[in-house]
Amino acid sequence: MGLVPTTTPSLELHPDRLLPADRERRPIARRLYESVKDLPIISPHGHVPPSWISEDTPFRDPTSLLITPDHYITRMLHAHGVPLSDLGVGRGPLDDSAARAAFTALCTHWSAYRGTPVRYWLEEELAGIFGVTVRPSAETADAIYDQIAAKLAEPGFRPRALMDAFGIDVLATTDDPCDSLDEHATLAADSTFAPRVVPTFRPDKYLDPALATWAADVDRLGQVSGIDTGDYAGYVAALEERRRYFVSRGAVSADHGVIDAVTVILDEAEASRIFTAARAGTATEEEATALRRHMLSEMARMSCEDGLVMTIHPGVRRNHHTATFDTYGPDVGCDIPISVEYTDSLRPLLDAYGTHPNLNLVLFTIDETVYSRELAPLAGFYPSVYVGVPWWFIDAPEAIRRFRSAVTETAGFSRTSGFIDDTRAFCSIPARHDMSRRLDAGYLSELVVEHRLGEDEAHEAIQDLVVANPRKVFKLGGESR
Amino acid sequence: MGLVPTTTPSLELHPDRLLPADRERRPIARRLYESVKDLPIISPHGHVPPSWISEDTPFRDPTSLLITPDHYITRMLHAHGVPLSDLGVGRGPLDDSAARAAFTALCTHWSAYRGTPVRYWLEEELAGIFGVTVRPSAETADAIYDQIAAKLAEPGFRPRALMDAFGIDVLATTDDPCDSLDEHATLAADSTFAPRVVPTFRPDKYLDPALATWAADVDRLGQVSGIDTGDYAGYVAALEERRRYFVSRGAVSADHGVIDAVTVILDEAEASRIFTAARAGTATEEEATALRRHMLSEMARMSCEDGLVMTIHPGVRRNHHTATFDTYGPDVGCDIPISVEYTDSLRPLLDAYGTHPNLNLVLFTIDETVYSRELAPLAGFYPSVYVGVPWWFIDAPEAIRRFRSAVTETAGFSRTSGFIDDTRAFCSIPARHDMSRRLDAGYLSELVVEHRLGEDEAHEAIQDLVVANPRKVFKLGGESR
Amino acid sequence: MGLVPTTTPSLELHPDRLLPADRERRPIARRLYESVKDLPIISPHGHVPPSWISEDTPFRDPTSLLITPDHYITRMLHAHGVPLSDLGVGRGPLDDSAARAAFTALCTHWSAYRGTPVRYWLEEELAGIFGVTVRPSAETADAIYDQIAAKLAEPGFRPRALMDAFGIDVLATTDDPCDSLDEHATLAADSTFAPRVVPTFRPDKYLDPALATWAADVDRLGQVSGIDTGDYAGYVAALEERRRYFVSRGAVSADHGVIDAVTVILDEAEASRIFTAARAGTATEEEATALRRHMLSEMARMSCEDGLVMTIHPGVRRNHHTATFDTYGPDVGCDIPISVEYTDSLRPLLDAYGTHPNLNLVLFTIDETVYSRELAPLAGFYPSVYVGVPWWFIDAPEAIRRFRSAVTETAGFSRTSGFIDDTRAFCSIPARHDMSRRLDAGYLSELVVEHRLGEDEAHEAIQDLVVANPRKVFKLGGESR
Repeated sequence: MGLVPTTTPSLELHPDRLLPADRERRPIARRLYESVKDLPIISPHGHVPPSWISEDTPFRDPTSLLITPDHYITRMLHAHGVPLSDLGVGRGPLDDSAARAAFTALCTHWSAYRGTPVRYWLEEELAGIFGVTVRPSAETADAIYDQIAAKLAEPGFRPRALMDAFGIDVLATTDDPCDSLDEHATLAADSTFAPRVVPTFRPDKYLDPALATWAADVDRLGQVSGIDTGDYAGYVAALEERRRYFVSRGAVSADHGVIDAVTVILDEAEASRIFTAARAGTATEEEATALRRHMLSEMARMSCEDGLVMTIHPGVRRNHHTATFDTYGPDVGCDIPISVEYTDSLRPLLDAYGTHPNLNLVLFTIDETVYSRELAPLAGFYPSVYVGVPWWFIDAPEAIRRFRSAVTETAGFSRTSGFIDDTRAFCSIPARHDMSRRLDAGYLSELVVEHRLGEDEAHEAIQDLVVANPRKVFKLGGESR
Repeated sequence: MGLVPTTTPSLELHPDRLLPADRERRPIARRLYESVKDLPIISPHGHVPPSWISEDTPFRDPTSLLITPDHYITRMLHAHGVPLSDLGVGRGPLDDSAARAAFTALCTHWSAYRGTPVRYWLEEELAGIFGVTVRPSAETADAIYDQIAAKLAEPGFRPRALMDAFGIDVLATTDDPCDSLDEHATLAADSTFAPRVVPTFRPDKYLDPALATWAADVDRLGQVSGIDTGDYAGYVAALEERRRYFVSRGAVSADHGVIDAVTVILDEAEASRIFTAARAGTATEEEATALRRHMLSEMARMSCEDGLVMTIHPGVRRNHHTATFDTYGPDVGCDIPISVEYTDSLRPLLDAYGTHPNLNLVLFTIDETVYSRELAPLAGFYPSVYVGVPWWFIDAPEAIRRFRSAVTETAGFSRTSGFIDDTRAFCSIPARHDMSRRLDAGYLSELVVEHRLGEDEAHEAIQDLVVANPRKVFKLGGESR
Repeated sequence: MGLVPTTTPSLELHPDRLLPADRERRPIARRLYESVKDLPIISPHGHVPPSWISEDTPFRDPTSLLITPDHYITRMLHAHGVPLSDLGVGRGPLDDSAARAAFTALCTHWSAYRGTPVRYWLEEELAGIFGVTVRPSAETADAIYDQIAAKLAEPGFRPRALMDAFGIDVLATTDDPCDSLDEHATLAADSTFAPRVVPTFRPDKYLDPALATWAADVDRLGQVSGIDTGDYAGYVAALEERRRYFVSRGAVSADHGVIDAVTVILDEAEASRIFTAARAGTATEEEATALRRHMLSEMARMSCEDGLVMTIHPGVRRNHHTATFDTYGPDVGCDIPISVEYTDSLRPLLDAYGTHPNLNLVLFTIDETVYSRELAPLAGFYPSVYVGVPWWFIDAPEAIRRFRSAVTETAGFSRTSGFIDDTRAFCSIPARHDMSRRLDAGYLSELVVEHRLGEDEAHEAIQDLVVANPRKVFKLGGESR
């Protein structure tokens, strides 16, 4: 591994980071970035727990804030031999000594993150939010831990204060259809709190009869909605009712994480027949799959009626390593993507609803092959379809560049979703949005220096990407402040 | 959307557009581009109606020339909510007021095309052909419309004059096997008209027994060829006869748009049996598919015999949105690509004919994943196989760069097809070929500055790409003038 | 083809070749490259015959050294119409006149290799090893041939002397499980010979009951191992025994070339039943496939026990052109890649062994689509999984850049394998490793100029890529000299 530095390396954020380095593009990219860098953050899809904001309790310690809930970080440490339990995964909060040890593990493996966006975001969080000035390492871990812990005890580092400091205008959470959304109501009613914190309807587990938990969840759906879900008509009505409830609490979208994007439209009698069989536990695997795919089409139908934007994130094999799932549960870093097909899969849905004026359908992918082949062509024809920005594993500089390169030539800028952080790592939100703005400035500067776009138009385009697109696509209304 | 410009933005074509902007590559790219920019255009595959050239009637109005027939343009307007009927699609020519409104719709949505090749080509057409000097917008639409309409009334803007001004040496059309090709004969017999306008044999609908129109088309094939197509032997003989007729009228290639690239070779008895069943309407879906795949192999066999270059464009789901197809018909912008496999699919065909000295087989794709994985490896071994340049959705700067990057390292430059415009947008032909020359100059300049290729060889390579490759691959003979 | 040069073009190796050309990155890339360019070569996977090293006989002639065994070269000449037999393929050595003619064919088609890594490597071999100073062409072919032939007669150009000149520290060969490995023993016992030449266990044909040769090979396995392979338990024991033998002779890895990466784990009784059926010639195709996939999992189990690193190279359709295979045999340039799936395919294997501390599993691909979608996510979670560097058709500058771009953001640098030359072209080994070092320097310089990584860390990273990663991943122990 070589050199031992004689002095502790510093941690600094260069003002031109991620901008193109050549002297032709950099000045243009700088001007474009400058024009949007201080605009508020619109985050129409993410996973921050709403209780953090409504309760506004101080964060416990650096590890439970920055490491334990962030599977981007924990998975890489796991790959380097650190047990997930040492990081607090699936264990509840660590005591101070264990939390400190987990933080030291991260700093000791700092080199493992070279070239990754996790490293980029963390540097920005450490230096930009917590004022850390030394590079993380085994030697500096304790001092950095102490510095962050001290900050977390200050009032300016409680969730609402940070949200204000981050400039977040809109923050969407992800919520169970049976959730009361009380925290959202509390926040909406609080006249001292300006940002919009909106819920998102996420019904996956209610739509897949193959899940062992499905029948119980559908029962609960009946109880919460007050509509008997004993038959198919009631089940559909209960879902419609909960969607309306979400709309009444400020929701703008419904989010769908599915293994594939295949849709079918069953006739009422067949859907009803399968539903009854599934409730009785006698549906075949094929029938359960058919009903799941039909219900995805039903969600589009309901979106046409209630206006909720529909987002689809297909193609991830969840809990790939069985022993890890059995020990730690879901969402701990062992989900692995698979290839996905959209063109034929979505055809039934799009045939039925693709030109409906109320439908906005945002298609995300981790399978980059579909950008130029399927998603951009779909978004370049269907008025309802928008290409979602890179998500999860590909929410990273090189991948975002590939995304713009692959999508823009067929779909332009206006048929893309605007940036989505999709994160449960609260402190990474500003770094992620800032990264996106820098990369879009870089991409646009390339078009300018190659005389494909005037700089005046590039300025309009980046304003649209940061403000107009997310507001339009997610029906957030209003103009940027 | 922000800024309202105080003066009308101008429309200018920068001489270095699309060339690399850095000071290392740009001078080399300029020299390479300069060496080929004025070479004549060879267009061995496209969709310009031959009657436009043979009749040489003036174009009716800007909209029917530039918008209505160009699904690249109309699909994006559709995505932004403009009904296709407002653009003249499927309606025949619009009256002047509607044509003007359609043109205004395009100009009003000018920002939607930022970063797309459609925008790039249109700018070049407006400024380079029609002398437009202001950027299209709602405000400038009428003036631009009037300026183009005035030009179209001049003799210098009739089809043959434009073809001459564009420097088109060879233009291939795409024709039905039963077509008389009279327009081609008229043009060939006209000693005042220098360019070659050659037909292309496009037999798709005669080769797919699953189509509802197939039986009637095969009947017509029998009538036109004078060979009874009541049995398989006659069907094959009639196809061979029409191919010979096309060859006699100057055709150099046969083009195949197929849903997949799968080939099989049936024995004569089985092919005959299925053909008879298909004629009787009793073939199963599997049998119809098998016969279609067999007939693709038969086309290769015939190419070995009559010398027609074989081009295959697989992998597009046609008429994805049923309601649009029902209202407007085919080719209106709702075809969406799917993934395609070539290695195993083409193996029967290549096993039988892949090393035949008469076969030139050009493989196109919209599925970019196959460039490095399948197409370049195939073209780097089989003497018959050439990798087609990017087509349709991926005929665009970034995609063309990805193409050269993905293909060259395995197949070099000489196993690629030369540029194909594949367009029905007549006025975009010079812009498309010029775009290709600029991009190839840029790619080669990268090899030069990285010391992977001498500049003298880069000059030879770009000459080959513009002239020698298309002449060799499409058997056009001769040297450039 | 244009210009005839008035003087013979020279052949020169620019010191900055392949480094980024812009003035921001080049100086950084130069410093990074300088820091590793003279480090010894570690080649943990390749195809050099061990007899070349142990016998150390002079190479016969330029053609049998540089052309005949190198299917990268012969396949392109074949695509340009040169019969493989003219190049000595499948014929044994050519006589001097034929060897000279083959060399002339290569030089005459020099332009066909423009932009390919074959050209890049050959230039480096010709200029760097043999001192050639003129560009190959029909005119210069004879003189170059004579120059190389004269060198080959010198003692400094015998295999061991070249290996020393190349700076090869470790060279792995690829060997049949029944091989005696006598040449490896000879080399290990020779105290005058410093490099490690280690065997690699390559059991493909013993693991696929669908092969016509399988039964005879399993018989031979029994004879060589001294364990009766008449039943499944003996078959497994014999494989284990031969692996132990390879370990005792210095092997560090077992290599698996499979058509797909699908794994299953059969229970003992089912595996035994299928084995017995396969031995009797009565196994169905499905059963044979199941046993092959089970045996791949078994290889992982054995790796956990005996520590051999497991490498998998799936996804190549071998001998695509039947007539070529029938005439010339395997490995002559007509293998063509297909798409491959890893996430679901490897799940049974990884569920069972993916977190075992003894398993190192290196996954190679020619299907680039899996880098960001599957391989990097797998390597970023499983401690056993490493992403193999680009292989075969994609072992080339642009593809290697795409690899780093696609993999690093999810897996970092430390979860990749280090460079693998995988070649039977002995003289290309230094050029290939040098190419990799230049490209990694270029990639790292991009991170530095965009302020994503400090230059001090980039220096550590490139040391790791050249030395630490291959030693760690392939369990080679020790530090670089």
